[in-house]
Amino acid sequence: MARIGLVGFGRMGQAILPRLVQSGAPVMVWNRTDKTKLIEAAGAIPASSPSEVVKNCDVVLSFLFDDAAVEAVYLGPSGLFSESCEGRTFIEMSTIKPRTIEAISCAALARRAAFVEAPVSGSTAAARAGSLLVLAGGAPDEICAVTPILNLFARRVVHMGPIGRGMAAKLGVQLLTYSYWLALGEAAAIASSSGLPIKEFLEVLADTPAALGALRGKLPAILGDEKDVAFSISAAQKDLEVIRDHARLLDVQGAMGESVFGQYGAAVRSGLGDDDIAAIVAFASKRPAHSQAQQRDITSENK
Amino acid sequence: MARIGLVGFGRMGQAILPRLVQSGAPVMVWNRTDKTKLIEAAGAIPASSPSEVVKNCDVVLSFLFDDAAVEAVYLGPSGLFSESCEGRTFIEMSTIKPRTIEAISCAALARRAAFVEAPVSGSTAAARAGSLLVLAGGAPDEICAVTPILNLFARRVVHMGPIGRGMAAKLGVQLLTYSYWLALGEAAAIASSSGLPIKEFLEVLADTPAALGALRGKLPAILGDEKDVAFSISAAQKDLEVIRDHARLLDVQGAMGESVFGQYGAAVRSGLGDDDIAAIVAFASKRPAHSQAQQRDITSENK
Repeated sequence: MARIGLVGFGRMGQAILPRLVQSGAPVMVWNRTDKTKLIEAAGAIPASSPSEVVKNCDVVLSFLFDDAAVEAVYLGPSGLFSESCEGRTFIEMSTIKPRTIEAISCAALARRAAFVEAPVSGSTAAARAGSLLVLAGGAPDEICAVTPILNLFARRVVHMGPIGRGMAAKLGVQLLTYSYWLALGEAAAIASSSGLPIKEFLEVLADTPAALGALRGKLPAILGDEKDVAFSISAAQKDLEVIRDHARLLDVQGAMGESVFGQYGAAVRSGLGDDDIAAIVAFASKRPAHSQAQQRDITSENK
Repeated sequence: MARIGLVGFGRMGQAILPRLVQSGAPVMVWNRTDKTKLIEAAGAIPASSPSEVVKNCDVVLSFLFDDAAVEAVYLGPSGLFSESCEGRTFIEMSTIKPRTIEAISCAALARRAAFVEAPVSGSTAAARAGSLLVLAGGAPDEICAVTPILNLFARRVVHMGPIGRGMAAKLGVQLLTYSYWLALGEAAAIASSSGLPIKEFLEVLADTPAALGALRGKLPAILGDEKDVAFSISAAQKDLEVIRDHARLLDVQGAMGESVFGQYGAAVRSGLGDDDIAAIVAFASKRPAHSQAQQRDITSENK
């Protein structure tokens, strides 16, 4: 049985760990900040560095925040590539620039390690339920070899082509999702300013062909009935920066991507970075500011 | 049995007429341009003016292109309101400005006629299949009275509130759909420029939470395998003008709506107005211009 390593223990890492542990394989986890107790409580072994994970595991999954974190974890001191990693397999699941993942993939090849990109579609709930969609890129034999491990948390593993194509598919999927939540904010503003309560609008919308697959699951968060942060606006802004950078590199940038990037940036600057992405709907509909202003008016009248 | 009138015999009017006729009710149809043969072939009676429809029918459905057409048909010479229409019921299904529909609704009230707004979600295929969603606005008793007629082509009639709220919901739904197709074009450009064929990208996308409800049905048209025009880019541009006008009136306009409006306008100016809305995806991904340019290069080389 392959020994599994997990590098990066954020929201998604925490969501898949129980599924890795339940497989019966020994699992070792490293995180930049100390999460020893959480890791041990989940039945895994904490590691003191990425290199310790490589020494003790056959397959290393990586789920990190951004390009800088991925580069530091693979190439930095005590990083995944700081010791011999011949015969090891690395599965990179972070959403990062295709050129970064291509560079890491080349570095893995030079070290005689296998390397698969495996960005996922689906959020923390799908990860916990084992229903993520993996957009795999890499050599077909290497993807096939790790598919049993991916299937511990995925309902489907799609082979998109060589390294970079899985990431390109993921960036496209993310651009669509982020655009949709913004447009939903504007649509909700039109509805509510016309006297139609947002909840009624959203419930009808969910029954039209204009409903996004992700809409029903996000309704409680959009309406403020669910406070759990599944995916933050800061993380979306980071993804949009990756999308914009990649689109510019390919000379295919468009007006939507630029506009969406600008508005998520504005939301982060206004202090919403740590909120769930559902908060972007209220931000785009300018509801909370409006309601607060009304609240203040009412309060001062009562004084 | 109520005698049914239909005013406006464009794509949607043509799609619902067979369902009205199949109910067994006598149906009279008027269209701005002569479509006598099409109307008779469908088993309905052609009328020479809107006022002739009012004289001969109890309930008049109207499915027109834009605000100007609606105003002319109701208020113009030989229009629906040019003769007594006391006791008649008007069902307005066009996507127009909420303030226009409110004005027509007031004019109907002054004439002791019933008036219901009934914009629909769903395209020609849904209309033919009787599976439209009706976003009804108006007095509850008037909506209830016409629901059996709406159910001839609808799977569901939702009562959104007084006149204007059904239209506000429809405008929100349309803004979302039009934004999505544009973002899809940019996402597809990123994927294809990264070496991932658009067809593969779209097929994977359709299996993610980033899939719009309408996506699967539009895939053949987006990929160029289906040439039937279900809804034109010009019609979308007209809707976006209505959306922008209404949003400005409410002082809720946002960056997405402005950007989307601008890009559909650019597509119309580049000659795509009569194409199906699916063509906006290729326009946004800049594929056809690119392919045509390549084609020309190849042709000139061959000379």
